[in-house]
Amino acid sequence: MMPPINPNLSAAFPPPVMEARRWVEGKVFPSNAPLINVSQAAPIDPPPEGLRQAIADAALTLPEAHLYGPVLGLPALRDEVALQFSNAYGGNISSENVAITSGCNQAFCAAIATLAATGDEVILPTPWYFNHKMWLDMNGITAVPLRPASGLLPDPEKAATLITPRTRAIVLVTPNNPAGVEYPAELIARFRDLARKHGIALIIDETYRDFHSQDGAPHGLLTDPSWDDTVIQLYSFSKAYRLTGHRVGALVTSPERLAQIEKFLDTVTICPAQLGQHAALWGMRNLGNWLAGERREILKRAQAVRDGFEPPANQGWRLLGCGAYFAYLEHPFSIPSNQLAQRLVDDVAILALPGTMFTPEGDPDGKQQFRVAFANIDCDQIASFLQRLAKFQL
Amino acid sequence: MMPPINPNLSAAFPPPVMEARRWVEGKVFPSNAPLINVSQAAPIDPPPEGLRQAIADAALTLPEAHLYGPVLGLPALRDEVALQFSNAYGGNISSENVAITSGCNQAFCAAIATLAATGDEVILPTPWYFNHKMWLDMNGITAVPLRPASGLLPDPEKAATLITPRTRAIVLVTPNNPAGVEYPAELIARFRDLARKHGIALIIDETYRDFHSQDGAPHGLLTDPSWDDTVIQLYSFSKAYRLTGHRVGALVTSPERLAQIEKFLDTVTICPAQLGQHAALWGMRNLGNWLAGERREILKRAQAVRDGFEPPANQGWRLLGCGAYFAYLEHPFSIPSNQLAQRLVDDVAILALPGTMFTPEGDPDGKQQFRVAFANIDCDQIASFLQRLAKFQL
Repeated sequence: MMPPINPNLSAAFPPPVMEARRWVEGKVFPSNAPLINVSQAAPIDPPPEGLRQAIADAALTLPEAHLYGPVLGLPALRDEVALQFSNAYGGNISSENVAITSGCNQAFCAAIATLAATGDEVILPTPWYFNHKMWLDMNGITAVPLRPASGLLPDPEKAATLITPRTRAIVLVTPNNPAGVEYPAELIARFRDLARKHGIALIIDETYRDFHSQDGAPHGLLTDPSWDDTVIQLYSFSKAYRLTGHRVGALVTSPERLAQIEKFLDTVTICPAQLGQHAALWGMRNLGNWLAGERREILKRAQAVRDGFEPPANQGWRLLGCGAYFAYLEHPFSIPSNQLAQRLVDDVAILALPGTMFTPEGDPDGKQQFRVAFANIDCDQIASFLQRLAKFQL
Repeated sequence: MMPPINPNLSAAFPPPVMEARRWVEGKVFPSNAPLINVSQAAPIDPPPEGLRQAIADAALTLPEAHLYGPVLGLPALRDEVALQFSNAYGGNISSENVAITSGCNQAFCAAIATLAATGDEVILPTPWYFNHKMWLDMNGITAVPLRPASGLLPDPEKAATLITPRTRAIVLVTPNNPAGVEYPAELIARFRDLARKHGIALIIDETYRDFHSQDGAPHGLLTDPSWDDTVIQLYSFSKAYRLTGHRVGALVTSPERLAQIEKFLDTVTICPAQLGQHAALWGMRNLGNWLAGERREILKRAQAVRDGFEPPANQGWRLLGCGAYFAYLEHPFSIPSNQLAQRLVDDVAILALPGTMFTPEGDPDGKQQFRVAFANIDCDQIASFLQRLAKFQL
C-alpha cells in the first residue's frame, strides 16, 4: 500500500516549462528551420566574461564562498540592494529590509508563507504567473482570479469586490509575466491603498524591472515612509545578469516580516548559494552600463515584435501586450491554445506556452492566448518567428 | 494596519543556528582561548583544491552552468547518484528515482509536501533535527514526538502506538543528528515494515552516511525490490565534499512521487544551482579516496571524544551518543541547557546547541542535553574542548 499523495500537491498542475520541453523531446527540426524556443523566460547566453571570471576567482580565492552563509544572505549584497534600490525608487530601504533568496520564486514562496495558511485567499490578476498559482494550490490557499480590464490591466475596483475576511494579499507582477504589460505607477498606488485599507499585503514582483521601457522609477511605492506596513517587493538577479542557473533573488519587506522569512528560508535551503550571491554583487557593482545595453537591445526586440503586428494583424494573430520579456498573443483559431501549442511545434517549429497555463481551468481567454518570451531571440529570429506564425494554418 | 503573520509560521521557532550566532555576536574571546564553535554541523575548510578548480573551470568554460537546468537536476548527476547508490546499498536505483535538490533540507521539505497537509501528522523520534520540526510546524502538520528507548534509539513498538489515521510518515535520521547514534540495519528494517503495514512513508535522512563507522551498506532497505512503495531516502553533498555553501542534496523515491516533487521544486527554486551540481558530480567521480581519508579523520575525532568521557565521566558530563558529526551530552547542572549554553559561551568560550532546540517544549531530557558538532574541530581542539568542559562550574 503506497502512501497517498497530499491532495493539495496532486491538485497543482505540473511545471509548464517542463511539460513544454516534453513536446519537443526526440523531435528533429530541419537545419534550415530550427526550433524557435520562446517558452521559458531565460537568457540563452551565459553572463559576460568579466562576471564569469569573477565567479571563477571567488571559487578559487574565497574559501567562505563554499561554506554556509547567513540565512538572509550575504551582508554586502543586502547592503548593495538597499543602496541601489533606495536610489532607484527614491525610497528609504535599509539592509534590514532585504533578504537574498534562492531565486525570485522562492522569494514569493517565502512572502506567502508569512501571510497565508490553508484556507486563506490570495488575489492573482489573470493571466497569472503559473508558479504563483502552483504555490498557492500546493498549500491549500485559494488563488482568487482577478480578470483583466482593458489593456490586460488589473482593476482595483474589481479587486475590492473580491476581498473577503480570508484574503491575505494581492499580487502584482510588473512588467507583467506573462502579458508583457507595464502597470502605470498610479494604478500600482491604487492597489497599495486598497491593500492597506483592508490590512492585507501588496506583493509586487519586479523580476523584469530592469527591462522596463520607462526610465526612472516605475512606481512610487517605496517613497511612502510607511511602505513596509503593506508592500513586499520581489526581485530577481537572473534576468539582469544572466544568472538563471545560480538561483539568486531578493525580497524587500519590514524587518519584522523578515524575522519570519528567516525561519522559512532556513528550513527550505539554509542559505542562498554563495557563488551566485557573489556573482550578483559583482554584477550590481560592475555591470550597470552593460545592463543598460541589454535593456536597449530588449526594447529593440519588443519594437520588432510590435512592428510585426501592426495592422493588419499578422494573419489574424493579435498582439495583446508587449514589454519586458514577453509578448502576449491572441490566436485566430477555434481550437484551444494548449492543443494549438503542439501543432505550432510540429508544423512551424515554434515552442510557446499556451494561455491555458496562465489562466484558471476552462478560462475562455486562456484558450485563445499565447505567451511568447521574445527576449530570448534576436531580431532576425523574431522576423523568422513572425513569418512562421503568418504561414501557420490549421 | 499591518497584515497579520500566518500563525503556523509564527508558531515555528527561530533558526537555532542563527540564534546561537547571536549569543557570540560582538563578544571578544582571548587569543589564547578563542571560541570553540561546535554549534553548526559544517566543514570549516573549503573543498579540496581540485574541486575548487573544477568549479572555476565550469564557470569559465560551461555556458550552461550559468543557465536554468532541469527541475529535477543535472541528468549526469542523477545518473551518478543512481549508479553509486545502487552499488553502495546493493539495490536497484535508477536515474528515474533520483532528484537533486537545493540541499538536503529542501529534500525533506519536498518529501513532506508530497505526503502531508495541514492537520496531518508525522512521527519524529526525539531528539529531532530542528529544521524537520520547523517545516512541519510552519505547514500546520503535527510533529508527533517519539521519545527514545535505551541508547537514544527509537522503538518501533512505541512508534506503532503513535500511528493514527492522520499519520503520513515516520522520519529517521541515521547517523543521527543531533544524537550521533547509528541506527542498526535491523532496527531500520523494522521501521520500514511498520510504515509499509500502515501505508505511510519511511523517510530516511542519511546526510551523514559518509561518516558512518561501519564499512559497507548501513541498511538493506534498497535491496527490497519494492522499496520505493515506502522508503524515501535523503542525502546531502554538503558534508562529504565541503559544499555547504552550494546547496546540493538528493532525494531517492518512486518515479510517481518524483513527478509530484518536480512540482514542488519547480515552484520553490526552479532548479538547483548548477555550479554546485557540477561540483557534486566532480566530487563523486574524483574524490572517493579523499573522502575515505576524511571519514578516517572524523572517526578518529569521534574516538577522541569517546576517550574524553571514559569513566569517570568528565566532571559529571555524560556522553549519550557519539558518531558521524555529533556528540550528544548530558550535563550535571540543575539549570536548563538553553540557559547553560550562554554561560558556556561567556565562561569557557564554547558555543554548542542546547538539547532544548532538539526536543518538544518543556521536555525534561532536552533541558539536560547538548549537541556538540565535534567534526568541525580537530583533535587538539577536542582536547581543549574537553578541558574547558571539565573546568566549567556554575
